[in-house]
Amino acid sequence: MKLLRYGPSGREKPGLLDANGQIRDLSALVPDIGGDTISPAGLKRLSEIDPSTLPAVEGNPRLGPCVSGLQKILCIGLNYSDHAAETGAEPPEEPIVFAKALNALCGPNDDVELPRGSKALDWEVELAVIIGSRTKYVSKDEAMDHVAGFAVMNDISERDFQTKRSGQWTKGKSHDTFGPLGPWLVTRDEVGDPHNLEMWLDVNGERRQTGNSNTLIFDVPTVVSYLSQFMTLMPGDVISTGTPPGVGMGMKPPVYLKEGDRMTLSIQGLGEQSQVVVPA
Amino acid sequence: MKLLRYGPSGREKPGLLDANGQIRDLSALVPDIGGDTISPAGLKRLSEIDPSTLPAVEGNPRLGPCVSGLQKILCIGLNYSDHAAETGAEPPEEPIVFAKALNALCGPNDDVELPRGSKALDWEVELAVIIGSRTKYVSKDEAMDHVAGFAVMNDISERDFQTKRSGQWTKGKSHDTFGPLGPWLVTRDEVGDPHNLEMWLDVNGERRQTGNSNTLIFDVPTVVSYLSQFMTLMPGDVISTGTPPGVGMGMKPPVYLKEGDRMTLSIQGLGEQSQVVVPA
Repeated sequence: MKLLRYGPSGREKPGLLDANGQIRDLSALVPDIGGDTISPAGLKRLSEIDPSTLPAVEGNPRLGPCVSGLQKILCIGLNYSDHAAETGAEPPEEPIVFAKALNALCGPNDDVELPRGSKALDWEVELAVIIGSRTKYVSKDEAMDHVAGFAVMNDISERDFQTKRSGQWTKGKSHDTFGPLGPWLVTRDEVGDPHNLEMWLDVNGERRQTGNSNTLIFDVPTVVSYLSQFMTLMPGDVISTGTPPGVGMGMKPPVYLKEGDRMTLSIQGLGEQSQVVVPA
Repeated sequence: MKLLRYGPSGREKPGLLDANGQIRDLSALVPDIGGDTISPAGLKRLSEIDPSTLPAVEGNPRLGPCVSGLQKILCIGLNYSDHAAETGAEPPEEPIVFAKALNALCGPNDDVELPRGSKALDWEVELAVIIGSRTKYVSKDEAMDHVAGFAVMNDISERDFQTKRSGQWTKGKSHDTFGPLGPWLVTRDEVGDPHNLEMWLDVNGERRQTGNSNTLIFDVPTVVSYLSQFMTLMPGDVISTGTPPGVGMGMKPPVYLKEGDRMTLSIQGLGEQSQVVVPA
């Protein structure tokens, strides 16, 4: 299934995309996409519904972030071997984990804000894992049972805020609109193997990132199990698994986003996002 | 006012502590302590109520974290000049910011978990700022208008996870129960000057930390204004402002918490917490 949230920001309704690309309204059946709705039992119930019996949503509504009610967005740094090689960094011995504040979450096609004073706004196409049930001290073997599905995330970053303003990365990762998520939460059964997905990102129609999740250093079960040793993952929580080569910071000289730039990005089977950069 | 949340974990009700130390039930008036309830208008409405007209809560219920519905817990590192001096570190040029995951939040007297394999569990008494309204790009002069009040936080940390496991601090700050908050959200008007509050922490009855918020390097308006340049603070969001001297990591040799240890901590006017360390 492809689950989504549609409507104005803050008032999104739950929906699904049927096989014909038609949005169907789920709001009579579930309160939102998150919590129990995306638990194993919740997804099973939804999968038993014939989408053609659900109300079709007219027009072309805005899409919100494809999940709600989450507690946290965790991101894995330097997790693609070809990206690590490109930057000259040694692959990390353990996953590098940082947090993106929830206020960053936005719809897949919402405008992205250029923070005041920003000179180093960057893009990162990433495979996001969406947790479906409480996850604490799980083994790698158990980890995938706790994954509801996957989505595209653009892990927008302000590199100067991230690296030149003292301390931890959170500062450069958490501005409003720094986390476009969606268009859809694609359930695990429909994605198949998450470790062989093509991904790309264009800026103003020019290809900047090209990758495949088959070069992940720490794969999805490893990351989920690893994180669950340090904190409890809750339904809806998002793990953004890292970015393949081609970020602006890595170009020589670095190239950063400016007002009016358009990013377009996609991961195989997970749909496409597109954002325009606007002043904060 | 002293606002609080009482009852079993996950099912807390809103309440307030009256001048006689009696808990009064607020659940007929507000849905919870958070969101609109702690906005300037919400606090004004509550302040106009005569507490003696509210139902008294019998017995001695468990207290939950004193705020709900928050999006994030941000913490400031190395923010006390006497603590910086003690560690030999230069005072930071800008606030050091890190995030604590929301699953860490717990009641002021709940047990604190010793994570599996933990050998470096540490304590940190901290003055927590609780945001009352949406805060983005505010000046220092405006900052305090966005603060609902203050509370005690114990910023529990696993030092090996924080510093020896690759990358960012989030890993060592986010285990379940690593964020006891409360007992009360004490509103700003009742606290008066937040920059002259005594604070202390004992382990098993022995004094470990002694400090006063008058040695904060970056004061409350500075921290609120600073953070609002990087991300939007939302009602209920918690900023833990850093810890005074006397953490376990700073002792020679370091002393860490073990199963059965009891921490007791307090900040002047904000009440007292007490936690026992238990296995995860």
